[in-house]
Amino acid sequence: MKKRPLHSAGDEKGQMSSDERSIRELVDQWMDASKRGDIEAALGLMSEDIIFMVPGQEPFGREKFTEMLQSMSGAEVDGRAEICELKLLGDWAWIRNHIEITIKPLGRGEPILRSGYALSILKRGSDGQWRLERDANLVT
Amino acid sequence: MKKRPLHSAGDEKGQMSSDERSIRELVDQWMDASKRGDIEAALGLMSEDIIFMVPGQEPFGREKFTEMLQSMSGAEVDGRAEICELKLLGDWAWIRNHIEITIKPLGRGEPILRSGYALSILKRGSDGQWRLERDANLVT
Repeated sequence: MKKRPLHSAGDEKGQMSSDERSIRELVDQWMDASKRGDIEAALGLMSEDIIFMVPGQEPFGREKFTEMLQSMSGAEVDGRAEICELKLLGDWAWIRNHIEITIKPLGRGEPILRSGYALSILKRGSDGQWRLERDANLVT
Repeated sequence: MKKRPLHSAGDEKGQMSSDERSIRELVDQWMDASKRGDIEAALGLMSEDIIFMVPGQEPFGREKFTEMLQSMSGAEVDGRAEICELKLLGDWAWIRNHIEITIKPLGRGEPILRSGYALSILKRGSDGQWRLERDANLVT
């Protein structure tokens, strides 16, 4: 597949809008919270009605997300998320990310490397903060 | 997870906008084209820059989509797509579908049932036609 240009909300001089900057910060904060296992921080980055979609499971929300992060408590998590595309649509936006995660279970074994893409829908709340609304995560 | 209300672009009387109707028709036409193995019809429902995302593969476009449908030539395909959520954002929209597909390979064996969810981004072109732009397909 040919390499595609980055969809960017910046103008032709390459300047980034404050919305685009906020969304890029959100992605960074998300990865930081995942590495630290900081559930409260992660929950603060998603809407109340968030729906996560992963292969082979029913869609889930904040409650199951919390359980999943708790079950990884003690594991060493490292990783990075690279935004491949970002499209602003007023108070909404969508992004396509490439994600690499390394998980080293507490006190045993080799690190597990997972990688893949995610398609995410974001929304700017009435408080001006961008939050994750929908997330289809194909990291395997 | 609690049952969520359908996100609908219709007004409070339950009337459906013409955009919502067009998108619902697009989903139906997509499923019909898949059942018939009609590659040309399917290609007409997606943008030139379409990106499909499936678990365990690199994202791909029209060319690989065509190869995949060709490789299924002769198989009997049945299925249905149910729109769980539909959100209109001007010339853009996103939908979350539940998909069930039954594939009966040509001349052999039992039908294979696949089901799961998809998160899709759609765009209305300058010709007024809605087309698929991005598709994260978690059907397994």
